[in-house]
Amino acid sequence: MSNLKSREIRLKSRPASRPAGMPHEGNFELVQNEVAPPGPGEVLVRNIWMSVDPYMRGRMTDTPSYIAPFKLGETLEAEAIGRIIKSNTPELQPGDFVGSMLGFRELFSAPPSALEKIEPAEGVPIQAYLGPLGRAGLTAYVGLIKIGEMKPGETVFVSGAAGAVGSIACQIAKIHGCTVIGSAGSERKCAWLTEVGGIDRAINYKTVQDLTKAVRQAAPDGIDVYFENVGGAHLIAALANMNVKGRLAICGMISRYNGVTSDTPVPNIIMVLRKSLKMQGFLVGESWDLLPQFRTQMVAWARAGKMRWTETVVEGLENAPGAFLGLFSGENLGKMLVKIGPDDA
Amino acid sequence: MSNLKSREIRLKSRPASRPAGMPHEGNFELVQNEVAPPGPGEVLVRNIWMSVDPYMRGRMTDTPSYIAPFKLGETLEAEAIGRIIKSNTPELQPGDFVGSMLGFRELFSAPPSALEKIEPAEGVPIQAYLGPLGRAGLTAYVGLIKIGEMKPGETVFVSGAAGAVGSIACQIAKIHGCTVIGSAGSERKCAWLTEVGGIDRAINYKTVQDLTKAVRQAAPDGIDVYFENVGGAHLIAALANMNVKGRLAICGMISRYNGVTSDTPVPNIIMVLRKSLKMQGFLVGESWDLLPQFRTQMVAWARAGKMRWTETVVEGLENAPGAFLGLFSGENLGKMLVKIGPDDA
Repeated sequence: MSNLKSREIRLKSRPASRPAGMPHEGNFELVQNEVAPPGPGEVLVRNIWMSVDPYMRGRMTDTPSYIAPFKLGETLEAEAIGRIIKSNTPELQPGDFVGSMLGFRELFSAPPSALEKIEPAEGVPIQAYLGPLGRAGLTAYVGLIKIGEMKPGETVFVSGAAGAVGSIACQIAKIHGCTVIGSAGSERKCAWLTEVGGIDRAINYKTVQDLTKAVRQAAPDGIDVYFENVGGAHLIAALANMNVKGRLAICGMISRYNGVTSDTPVPNIIMVLRKSLKMQGFLVGESWDLLPQFRTQMVAWARAGKMRWTETVVEGLENAPGAFLGLFSGENLGKMLVKIGPDDA
Repeated sequence: MSNLKSREIRLKSRPASRPAGMPHEGNFELVQNEVAPPGPGEVLVRNIWMSVDPYMRGRMTDTPSYIAPFKLGETLEAEAIGRIIKSNTPELQPGDFVGSMLGFRELFSAPPSALEKIEPAEGVPIQAYLGPLGRAGLTAYVGLIKIGEMKPGETVFVSGAAGAVGSIACQIAKIHGCTVIGSAGSERKCAWLTEVGGIDRAINYKTVQDLTKAVRQAAPDGIDVYFENVGGAHLIAALANMNVKGRLAICGMISRYNGVTSDTPVPNIIMVLRKSLKMQGFLVGESWDLLPQFRTQMVAWARAGKMRWTETVVEGLENAPGAFLGLFSGENLGKMLVKIGPDDA
């Protein structure tokens, strides 16, 4: 078996320093490459779907973090799902679905240790394992249950509520008997949240004059759990409206990732003291052991009609950078996915 | 028994709104009054010591909080220790020491239910029960152990380290085998911290140019637990220097209580996300059940020479407002106390 033609996307340059920190297409490079056939014990995988996520912004910068930065000139990484097209190991068979961190490329050879075999539940599209049944869904679950210590009957406020994590968080909170307020950046997203997601009240933060006041009106009895995806004015509004002994699960602060200077510093952190709040950042990786039970639960909720999801799909590996950049302008409703290969192996 | 002459301090006016929120002597009024003799089942108490604490600033303002605001024209409240001078109940005898919230007055009659009988440990001055063996000490203990989840070998940073709570927190952390950095506002306080308190490094925040850098130099391996008493630039410096999975126990933010506008909002709250930090406000009242065991422990530490404390004493009830105001200009080393009556009953 000779080398196979493939394509991949490399990090060409890092985004400029703050304040002009917005990444752009020029930071990425699409490259034609050749993939060596799988060695002994290895498999050859053709990716079908890949995920783009806000956290990748951090990996584009060369600063110490919980996850290694992307390296200049090297292939980027992302969660992906593909199928085995050739196997030199009895562990995996051609046609098997596998998840990996080896997105941003069409073909690759790897040992089974770099892969997670996925056996999709009946009636569940395979790409759901990159979203509601994967990292995004588990993040929502862990943030609410473990970090947010959510209890039935409480009021939960979710920012970025129409995104991959937020849309699942909203519904998990509803399933647990909570009143749920969500914020999103368009009327279409707000309509999805109330009509499909079933939340109590949605706030279009782009059209309200005063977000703190809007949250107060939407949650007149205050907020017990804040699920933070956005930062900035959203955090200020949440702090102002938290109830005593409320919890803030800090999952993301997408408004801050590109170092936009117009974003206001937080002037009311003293609320953490005044209201005995707990504010905690978390990484889903620390709770990865919960994934199997979470998936079982989610499939059951979905089959019972209690859990809905949607996705925003961009076609073609060459458009993966654009899909990633679109996260920061809020182009996605639900999980942002890139389709990079055919469904059949 | 006829009425007894006494003196008390009342709230005459509330501090002006922000930004000019610093309270001043004119907010207080010293009044000559008469105390009715104790009724059936009551006792007459002469206060000896009273405590002034930063949290009282919140009670001067008429805004909802965890504790009721002081009422205009009425006697202020504060923790106090006095002795029974007349008793109409077998529960308490003349000469007994009692703690109460009925400070800011010389004499008062009350039922035993409003009092806590104190049996001072041998060799421990009675006023220590208003400081290291009372609310201040327990606050330090709860903040480090329960909220801060402090573990041996960690690095602990305490702001307001020479104050009533901070000076005890520093030493509890040392006893638990931690490296301890403290900040304070004068050379005298810093000298006390290293020479008497035994901490590793003290920072005079008033003389350093860049507090964030000063903390980095004092704690080059980062901070695991931050005990927050000050807020503002201290919180910014702590966030910048926290280690991954660090904990911030938010006990107080004295720099913010008077709404001084020059105090900077917090621009780096995103560190809570980047470093998976836990930041938690707390009230010692929720852990009041730990007081007896804490006192036993503290007395043992003191007798073993592992726990030292100091106090700043202001003489005379008429000077209690000044003592309280002095907290905000950092006039106290250790607990700020007001001596308002003779030691003997």
